[in-house]
Amino acid sequence: MAEKVVVIGGVALGPKAACRCLRLKPDCDLTLVDENNFISYGGCGLPYYVSGEIQALDALRSTNYQVVRDPDFFARMKGFTVKNNTRALSIDRAAKRVHVKNLATGAEDDLPYDSLVLATGASPRIPPIPGHDLANIFTLTKLEDADRIRKLCEQGSIQEAVIVGGGFIGLESAVALADMWGISVTVLEMDRHLMGSVLPETLGRMAATDLARHNVTVYTSEKTVAFQGDKGTVTHVVTDKRTLRAQLVIIAAGFIPNTQIAKDAGLATIGNGAVIVDEHLRTSDPSIYAGGDCASIKNIITGKQGYLPLGSMSNRQGRVIGTNLAGGDATFPGFVGTWAVKLFDLSIAATGLTIDRARAEGFDAISVTVEQLDRAHFYPEKDMMALEIVVEKKTRRVLGLQGASVNAAGIKARIDAVSTALQYAKPTIDDISNLEVAYAPPFAAAMDIVNVAGNVADNVIEGRFTAIDGLAFAKLWEERETNHVFFIDARPGRAGVPIQEKHPEWHAIPLEDIENRLGELPRDRDIAIVCNTGLRSFETLLILKKHGITNVKNAMGGMQALRQMGVTGAIED
Amino acid sequence: MAEKVVVIGGVALGPKAACRCLRLKPDCDLTLVDENNFISYGGCGLPYYVSGEIQALDALRSTNYQVVRDPDFFARMKGFTVKNNTRALSIDRAAKRVHVKNLATGAEDDLPYDSLVLATGASPRIPPIPGHDLANIFTLTKLEDADRIRKLCEQGSIQEAVIVGGGFIGLESAVALADMWGISVTVLEMDRHLMGSVLPETLGRMAATDLARHNVTVYTSEKTVAFQGDKGTVTHVVTDKRTLRAQLVIIAAGFIPNTQIAKDAGLATIGNGAVIVDEHLRTSDPSIYAGGDCASIKNIITGKQGYLPLGSMSNRQGRVIGTNLAGGDATFPGFVGTWAVKLFDLSIAATGLTIDRARAEGFDAISVTVEQLDRAHFYPEKDMMALEIVVEKKTRRVLGLQGASVNAAGIKARIDAVSTALQYAKPTIDDISNLEVAYAPPFAAAMDIVNVAGNVADNVIEGRFTAIDGLAFAKLWEERETNHVFFIDARPGRAGVPIQEKHPEWHAIPLEDIENRLGELPRDRDIAIVCNTGLRSFETLLILKKHGITNVKNAMGGMQALRQMGVTGAIED
Repeated sequence: MAEKVVVIGGVALGPKAACRCLRLKPDCDLTLVDENNFISYGGCGLPYYVSGEIQALDALRSTNYQVVRDPDFFARMKGFTVKNNTRALSIDRAAKRVHVKNLATGAEDDLPYDSLVLATGASPRIPPIPGHDLANIFTLTKLEDADRIRKLCEQGSIQEAVIVGGGFIGLESAVALADMWGISVTVLEMDRHLMGSVLPETLGRMAATDLARHNVTVYTSEKTVAFQGDKGTVTHVVTDKRTLRAQLVIIAAGFIPNTQIAKDAGLATIGNGAVIVDEHLRTSDPSIYAGGDCASIKNIITGKQGYLPLGSMSNRQGRVIGTNLAGGDATFPGFVGTWAVKLFDLSIAATGLTIDRARAEGFDAISVTVEQLDRAHFYPEKDMMALEIVVEKKTRRVLGLQGASVNAAGIKARIDAVSTALQYAKPTIDDISNLEVAYAPPFAAAMDIVNVAGNVADNVIEGRFTAIDGLAFAKLWEERETNHVFFIDARPGRAGVPIQEKHPEWHAIPLEDIENRLGELPRDRDIAIVCNTGLRSFETLLILKKHGITNVKNAMGGMQALRQMGVTGAIED
Repeated sequence: MAEKVVVIGGVALGPKAACRCLRLKPDCDLTLVDENNFISYGGCGLPYYVSGEIQALDALRSTNYQVVRDPDFFARMKGFTVKNNTRALSIDRAAKRVHVKNLATGAEDDLPYDSLVLATGASPRIPPIPGHDLANIFTLTKLEDADRIRKLCEQGSIQEAVIVGGGFIGLESAVALADMWGISVTVLEMDRHLMGSVLPETLGRMAATDLARHNVTVYTSEKTVAFQGDKGTVTHVVTDKRTLRAQLVIIAAGFIPNTQIAKDAGLATIGNGAVIVDEHLRTSDPSIYAGGDCASIKNIITGKQGYLPLGSMSNRQGRVIGTNLAGGDATFPGFVGTWAVKLFDLSIAATGLTIDRARAEGFDAISVTVEQLDRAHFYPEKDMMALEIVVEKKTRRVLGLQGASVNAAGIKARIDAVSTALQYAKPTIDDISNLEVAYAPPFAAAMDIVNVAGNVADNVIEGRFTAIDGLAFAKLWEERETNHVFFIDARPGRAGVPIQEKHPEWHAIPLEDIENRLGELPRDRDIAIVCNTGLRSFETLLILKKHGITNVKNAMGGMQALRQMGVTGAIED
């Protein structure tokens, strides 16, 4: 008798695993159940459907080769049965059966299995905020959500929208609504900065600046306390600091793995409910696989079970499960946490741990920021790029890299290289300094910015200079009346003069002049140096060091980073 | 007494090593000698100066922070002495002295050293072709060359130019002359295809197509036999197949390491004369370091000494040597061979071994090509990308990846990820299938093309389907009268019909129709399937397999790849 496989969940991992399994073992008797009507869609594309950049919802349901993936497609082309509108109610592990219910007819049934795959995904977390069930309050994870939001936009009835949550989906939604529909959007984030769990504050601030430049208001450290409505439809969002008008609200406050059925069946889970799987993506029951947004796999950097709900990982895991269903021996080693998001001008990407996360995991770590051109400085087309590298002090081990640039593929290139290193090794600073990456002037500087990040981290960790990030520099400036720091602007020519004219505490001393103007510097006060990107200030610091002046702090990333973080106002105004 | 360091060579590695050394050990007594007038310039930028994209030569001699790197700069800012126009004539290793001659004054001198750095670079190879000393025949590795070539272009006296050699510099030169000056350019390459030592034929053909679309003529398998002139200036280039008019010739026929002085001193070298160094970049004499274009380091993939003259590697090696000069213990593990080049529309990059090179190194290897969108197929902005992955059959070990796309940073991203894997591990196909890279629809497909390359290689190597590249498909078509292959075009709708109308041997059978039209297929002849990119043809192949039809070949990369390789003419005309 043919082996029976049941797959629960039909968005990304489920269909992938099923197709792969049948490709390798065409005589498998495979059934996929999903409680929704639509299956197998590109959920990551939903914000682009909301914005209108994607014309038709079917584009998200189509293969690369333009065939819509409906139940008939899978039956005819891939050889398995899809039962949509069918909910899996329980798993009888002893009898190896899944009890399901057809949501349209109410009919219940038992599906026997030899192998079972849990691809149940995750549901958006809805915080228990009063009024969250008012009309026009949405989450954005299903085709139906996207369709209803876009229809509201098309009708022109939305002037103001509020996004609750400043993570991936929240920010992509904000961009979609503001960019394409001209809606006045406010993002509310409880954390100190946007994307707090995956970005350092420096880059979170850069994200906020990009949004602010495009008419998205960002309020951080702000808690949503109530939704108010009129005739059952939302009209206002109340926070702990203000009340905002809103005809549309999108709640993007994280995910909860859909694992009740797994927990009921006694499978091992982590704290958030995600089902624990091993390298073969098997749960604590070897007949049951799980993957994607409902599963917890190992974080390669921390060595602990982790959770990272990303469509790309679901796809890769689906293939591994499919191979194993067909009798293969494929493994998935875990994840390091690599992702990307595009806002308006700015693209942001990261891999591994942020400085905050590294410290929370018990690493004695520092982070260093670099701001540099992404291509040869003499090449006519180039963009600024910011990188923050996180390093364990004692071992010089690199724990993570985060970055931002208007060059979307360029930032992906740097992150992916370090992501790969993190997957294969415990790379040190030196490995990143030496990393062999593709170079020609239209692609990179001869010393690629990723190598520079390693070099700067090396200099900082070896105590060769004291580096402060732009936020710390801005704070020094803010507190200048009490800390008496001496500020040097090392930019060329007269670049620093306009600020000096407004603020005499600011000293415009170009790198070229510093040796002749050493007499102007105090010997009894700390010195902070800034330039455009951090290079001239570093050179200035080296010259001061040569002359025995060592109480010097260098503002990494320079005015470029300060401006991108939106903190130059206090200096330049 | 301060430690004495002498550095011979002042383009990339020399100044880098010197600056790094003095940063760590400011009391070092360091002298850099170079036989040229200009030092420390971005040699990789020369084609962009020729084209006019870079306005002034000084841009190539400046730091990132816009200071010109002349001898005074190094003395004043970096603390070492530069003797330019000074040639190192010999090394007395026993006495630890370098004998030098000032080329301006003729004065000779001995420079004592504790440590010596050879950064003598490489010189362009000039094949012994009669007439090579005629005026207006250049190489392009020095600022002076670029200046003279650009002046000729500016004077408008060049209508036709010939480039001898289809490698990096040859192609960048061809683009510079044709793109910006409108000169009619011909590239002559002895090999079967462009960039033969670093690209497979598929991608070499794509490079040639990109050039041909922009009025650069490419002749491969063609040998230059003589240069002819009038009044001492070149007028014609004679090949083994034709005579070409040319008022300008650039010879780009590879490099010869400048190591006579090292060989005379008895240092160990490889066949081409490059000085062998170890992981610390020390030569066979532990007091002498070498790096950059004059040195041979280990190829990490083959384990043998190799040679890769690239400015980016020189910079990274310079830093390592600088650290070691200052008493540190830095290492440089070797290289895998990662590079990039931008032509007109197309950017090309690669890492590791090509299929030809892998076989020459004794690997029993195959290569697989993939042609796919670089971003989510539903995302409005996206480009085609072609990748060729090279795999050892027995071990499934990945040996190299080459790729091309109009998305320059996008191709860098894929190559750099695999380059990193090759540096840290002996990655297998499965590692590449599972590689965690940054994803969101504006950056990649959910299954990134680099993962797809692994997946396809897996299917091919496991014998799940027979893959042929576009060139092999074109050859099957060309020989259809004798091989009796049955050709299927699986593209949707009527896409294949125009060809079928011209060539009845071509069968337009869309994937959607194949199951209903199985009766049309012969059971006694081989079948070759093509579609747009290789996806529909693969799906078609799977359906045929299900019905017991297995003598099927799938054209990887589809019509997209065929078109990019310039071989669709025979089919579509």
